[in-house]
Amino acid sequence: MELKQSKKVISADDQQERLKIESWIVGFTDGEGCFSVSILKNNTAKSGWQVFPEFVITQGAKSLPALEIFKKYFKCGKIFVNKRYDNHKENLYRYCVRSICELEKSIIPFFKRNKLKTYKKNDFDIFSKIIDSMSNRKHLTEKGFVKIAQLIETMNRKKKSRFLESSETKRQTK
Amino acid sequence: MELKQSKKVISADDQQERLKIESWIVGFTDGEGCFSVSILKNNTAKSGWQVFPEFVITQGAKSLPALEIFKKYFKCGKIFVNKRYDNHKENLYRYCVRSICELEKSIIPFFKRNKLKTYKKNDFDIFSKIIDSMSNRKHLTEKGFVKIAQLIETMNRKKKSRFLESSETKRQTK
Repeated sequence: MELKQSKKVISADDQQERLKIESWIVGFTDGEGCFSVSILKNNTAKSGWQVFPEFVITQGAKSLPALEIFKKYFKCGKIFVNKRYDNHKENLYRYCVRSICELEKSIIPFFKRNKLKTYKKNDFDIFSKIIDSMSNRKHLTEKGFVKIAQLIETMNRKKKSRFLESSETKRQTK
Repeated sequence: MELKQSKKVISADDQQERLKIESWIVGFTDGEGCFSVSILKNNTAKSGWQVFPEFVITQGAKSLPALEIFKKYFKCGKIFVNKRYDNHKENLYRYCVRSICELEKSIIPFFKRNKLKTYKKNDFDIFSKIIDSMSNRKHLTEKGFVKIAQLIETMNRKKKSRFLESSETKRQTK
């Protein structure tokens, strides 16, 4: 009887700990996270262009343990080092999830359950639409590809799309 | 009997909601928060210098609701607008807590109970020491003031201290 009670207590604690980690992940992503989708030139792709979605968190080396929390929780993604040779004292680390399957299975359902509280939620909603579209292989059709490029334009990014600006695309979408 | 049960459920939900907000605040602070202490020239101060501690979170206008969560939770601090006339599309907002009393009563106990997970914890620990020292009015003595300036130097900041670099301070601390 006592054993059962002790099990119950541990389980409530575990649940609370999980809740704390999840809310911390939402807060840290609201602060430092980035849902980005780029369209890159790729000569091996049929259209000559490739859609490249990425969920990224960047931190200095001293805060690497924070990135490891993400990797451990999501059970996917990789941590890359960006070696720095400028006047910064430490290397930068990036936690990245790039696989459509992992984004679809882990990252997107998590942020649908645990809502972001900043305007980054807007980026996430568009990101999520694009991943859904890619998962349905719509980016392999010309129409689907252009639609994705137009969605990217509504995200919080600075640069104009090289793909949409290219004379070939302009000709095709006229 | 039923009423009591319903009360219990609401209270557990409230507790869970509180836990979520608190962990989100820790995560967002790990990402975007800043515990800063500056020493500024002030001719009205006896020593000619003034210690200026500040807990700050900065966000673009579109994410103002995230700052309001902080203000509502901590029941202190102010939100200021930094009007921008450059090529950015939106004004910046800053949630700031500057009062020693409010920092000591609200901000510091919160982050002592809810530990930061990035290297920002190091800045917080030093910040907390400085506030403790100021609360004990040690910054009003020359020795105490220099000790604070030296603590600031161990924080994650870029610029050299104007106070410690001043010829007068160098002469006095020789």
